Amino acid sequence: MSDMRLIVAGAGGRMGRALTRAIAERQGAVLVGALATPGSELLGQDAGVLAGLPANGVKVSADLWAVSKEADGILDFTVPAATIANVAIAAERGIVHVIGTTGLSDSDDAVIKSVTNRAIVVKSGSMSLGVNLLVAVVRRVAKALDENFDIEIVETHHRRKVDAPSGTALMLGQAAAEGRGVSLIDHSVRGRDGITGPRKSGHIGFASLRGGTVTSDHQVMFAGPFERLTLSHQAEDRILFAYGALKAALWAHGKKPGLYSMSDVLGLAGM
Amino acid sequence: MSDMRLIVAGAGGRMGRALTRAIAERQGAVLVGALATPGSELLGQDAGVLAGLPANGVKVSADLWAVSKEADGILDFTVPAATIANVAIAAERGIVHVIGTTGLSDSDDAVIKSVTNRAIVVKSGSMSLGVNLLVAVVRRVAKALDENFDIEIVETHHRRKVDAPSGTALMLGQAAAEGRGVSLIDHSVRGRDGITGPRKSGHIGFASLRGGTVTSDHQVMFAGPFERLTLSHQAEDRILFAYGALKAALWAHGKKPGLYSMSDVLGLAGM
Amino acid sequence: MSDMRLIVAGAGGRMGRALTRAIAERQGAVLVGALATPGSELLGQDAGVLAGLPANGVKVSADLWAVSKEADGILDFTVPAATIANVAIAAERGIVHVIGTTGLSDSDDAVIKSVTNRAIVVKSGSMSLGVNLLVAVVRRVAKALDENFDIEIVETHHRRKVDAPSGTALMLGQAAAEGRGVSLIDHSVRGRDGITGPRKSGHIGFASLRGGTVTSDHQVMFAGPFERLTLSHQAEDRILFAYGALKAALWAHGKKPGLYSMSDVLGLAGM
Amino acid sequence: MSDMRLIVAGAGGRMGRALTRAIAERQGAVLVGALATPGSELLGQDAGVLAGLPANGVKVSADLWAVSKEADGILDFTVPAATIANVAIAAERGIVHVIGTTGLSDSDDAVIKSVTNRAIVVKSGSMSLGVNLLVAVVRRVAKALDENFDIEIVETHHRRKVDAPSGTALMLGQAAAEGRGVSLIDHSVRGRDGITGPRKSGHIGFASLRGGTVTSDHQVMFAGPFERLTLSHQAEDRILFAYGALKAALWAHGKKPGLYSMSDVLGLAGM
Repeated sequence: MSDMRLIVAGAGGRMGRALTRAIAERQGAVLVGALATPGSELLGQDAGVLAGLPANGVKVSADLWAVSKEADGILDFTVPAATIANVAIAAERGIVHVIGTTGLSDSDDAVIKSVTNRAIVVKSGSMSLGVNLLVAVVRRVAKALDENFDIEIVETHHRRKVDAPSGTALMLGQAAAEGRGVSLIDHSVRGRDGITGPRKSGHIGFASLRGGTVTSDHQVMFAGPFERLTLSHQAEDRILFAYGALKAALWAHGKKPGLYSMSDVLGLAGM
Repeated sequence: MSDMRLIVAGAGGRMGRALTRAIAERQGAVLVGALATPGSELLGQDAGVLAGLPANGVKVSADLWAVSKEADGILDFTVPAATIANVAIAAERGIVHVIGTTGLSDSDDAVIKSVTNRAIVVKSGSMSLGVNLLVAVVRRVAKALDENFDIEIVETHHRRKVDAPSGTALMLGQAAAEGRGVSLIDHSVRGRDGITGPRKSGHIGFASLRGGTVTSDHQVMFAGPFERLTLSHQAEDRILFAYGALKAALWAHGKKPGLYSMSDVLGLAGM
Repeated sequence: MSDMRLIVAGAGGRMGRALTRAIAERQGAVLVGALATPGSELLGQDAGVLAGLPANGVKVSADLWAVSKEADGILDFTVPAATIANVAIAAERGIVHVIGTTGLSDSDDAVIKSVTNRAIVVKSGSMSLGVNLLVAVVRRVAKALDENFDIEIVETHHRRKVDAPSGTALMLGQAAAEGRGVSLIDHSVRGRDGITGPRKSGHIGFASLRGGTVTSDHQVMFAGPFERLTLSHQAEDRILFAYGALKAALWAHGKKPGLYSMSDVLGLAGM
Repeated sequence: MSDMRLIVAGAGGRMGRALTRAIAERQGAVLVGALATPGSELLGQDAGVLAGLPANGVKVSADLWAVSKEADGILDFTVPAATIANVAIAAERGIVHVIGTTGLSDSDDAVIKSVTNRAIVVKSGSMSLGVNLLVAVVRRVAKALDENFDIEIVETHHRRKVDAPSGTALMLGQAAAEGRGVSLIDHSVRGRDGITGPRKSGHIGFASLRGGTVTSDHQVMFAGPFERLTLSHQAEDRILFAYGALKAALWAHGKKPGLYSMSDVLGLAGM
């Protein structure tokens, strides 16, 4: 098979540049397009140079329709409005659309779903292979253990992160709740302070640490009678999310239209 | 169903006393027999008192045949010779035989297997629920990840432990190798010192720490490009192995003859 | 020197029995008295038997004055009212009083202090050698690092613990604040949930996990630019607090009257 | 005080480029020179561009004597031969020489020491603030605890590292041995495999893990009776070593000639 021809959306952003670098390193993939918003001062610049690489001749554009004519896929870590615009065009072209954008609303999700009879979409709350594997494992372990095992989820991020718990921590909590067959909303504990009383059986606890430059750490503890299982993931650099997105694109290349997840990419669906 | 009537083999040993205490705490199980070796000075003593409990009227005996007449199962953490003798009688009686004995040879295993057309045997290298779950998870994760992820297994035990790596670490390594479809023997690294050269792709590393009174810690790290998954288990007290054995016995009660593992008990077989 | 003759207060409680066992194991110490509250049904019972040991001939009493006539010290993990009563008698006798009682008020502390011209008192929020060492180290590290390093304290305890954060976590926070020269009260973050904004520089965060049978884990993270220092302590069994108290008693034997801390016992005062 | 004028040795290497970036970010420091070996193809290139920054007008040179005429210090993470050549010139100029070069022999060290009546040298096995603090803390903790506490040192590095244990692990082991007042050489255990017998009292164990892209993790465990202290450091990115070197240079600016360590820079000498 010839190289997969890829477009990077948001090419001037932190994730966009990481995606450009990831494609440059990877055999079997080639960059053919780079997008920025209409009116951006980046339009016309070389995408390689933007990413701290040698010039590669790909000029930043605002026109996905034109750029996607000779492309096989688009990697998209942008904002909901841009992603929703992109998904219609990608569907029309019948190319792979890897969506790492966060903050999508339910109606955004509905739009995305509505085009997946034509589009090949891979969408996930985290493009990290490790995180997705951890989510699957947590669901399975939560299913295997009963309420004698208390579940606590701890996440650590850099000092600039403004919300808590992290989206990944909530994915992990959701997986634990599904494994147990309960609703997360009714079984969450978000912090403890003062006289709390004994821990409620079946609850899932969350704690969020903030400090320094930590990229992203997550830990799920199952604490039972005289033993503990702890499953954890540590991200060292955000380039790993670019690697994951690229792996998803290559996997989806040639698949029939549909809405896929990283769990499909990793073959974790039956886990 | 009425209470499961259980016999503890090696009732005067550290694990035997833990088993007696575990049965006393557990609804649905009752102690009806306690064994020691012929000639032991413990013969005739009260099994409850031996275990630091009030007297329970069960006198230590060396005669499994007699004791097992009115029993449903036997919990056996002894030595290979005793276990092999017990397995024949348990099979004859058609009762559950939970085997936590370590150091069984291939021929011991063959003997055990030979009686499982009549006997209901549950046998495992670790009776801990958590350890068995970790083994299953490690196999599954190793299968999902390729050789871009390096596997390292670290175990910590108390200062008196005389061998390394621990049996559980080897079970974990075996599971990782199976998940990857390779032979553990050809892919193990047992320690690094001096000029080692770069890590060999696909190898599985082992490290053994010893110190203090640590009951048993195991950790499996999958270190890939810019991310790490770490799966770990910590045993706080050896009573947990007694709880696991008891759970196995209750699960096996009423099952048809065969050789079962803790993986069956936990419903992890398809994981 | 002949054996130090010790009294255990609260001999029927969980810590009291651990203290009795610790003394029985230790060369250089001997149990000569065991206390319970007036009217307790334990009065007159054998303290060894109470602790799960062979009888040792020491009968439980409610009369410290009588019992302390031929004693060198008292180990006291009871309740504030009992401890305050004991401290006056111990001072009168001039014997060592090791106080592990928690929940002492400022006025209780004032009473204790008032007798230390005659009494030899060792008092600490934790009798664990490791915890006290950790407290000293945290103070020192907090002093050496500036506010580029964010401090987060995480503690884990069993599911039955009813308050958060643990007393030890607060000791660690206090030590960190002292090291930095700030007030803990003005610089604490007790949990994060929702839109929190970026971390405030100089704050000290606390998180409390609860689950299973965890005895006591504490972890202090200093997260700075591209590096993290993490200092942690894990208690495996509460017997360790008994060992610490016993070590304190032996250290204090023969010292001149005064109020000592575990930091003095360990020689950490100048750290 | 005006900005400290700094030279980066080995400006084209991985650490050299990190140093150039660190200086560019830091108020109070300015790059005035960049060195490469005579004959290098980098000579004459712009040091900013080399480091992935905008051009800064500093051209790479091989002539330290010329470059240092208008400089206050040199940051040197190169090879022993280059460092030894540089140290003589830096001494002649009376400027600060921060040495992060590893693999220096005893005779190299003697040469360095011989010029410190004129030179202001800061030299350390690790420029990380955190590592140096950990070394100081380990020495202090090892001194406070007796041989009831077993010491185990674990380090993790990326898969390309070719030697074990790491230099930092050995520094930590040395500090532990000093704290205890023993010789490290006589008290090291470098790996365990097979029938090892019980742990020898007083020994210091080392284990080296390798995998993925791990920058550098170190962990020192003190495992005693029923408790464990674990002190660990995690480096997230090698830029932190550049930050440490820069901090050392700024600290040393204006000091009198002598041989200083990062321990002096951090004020840890008396710890």
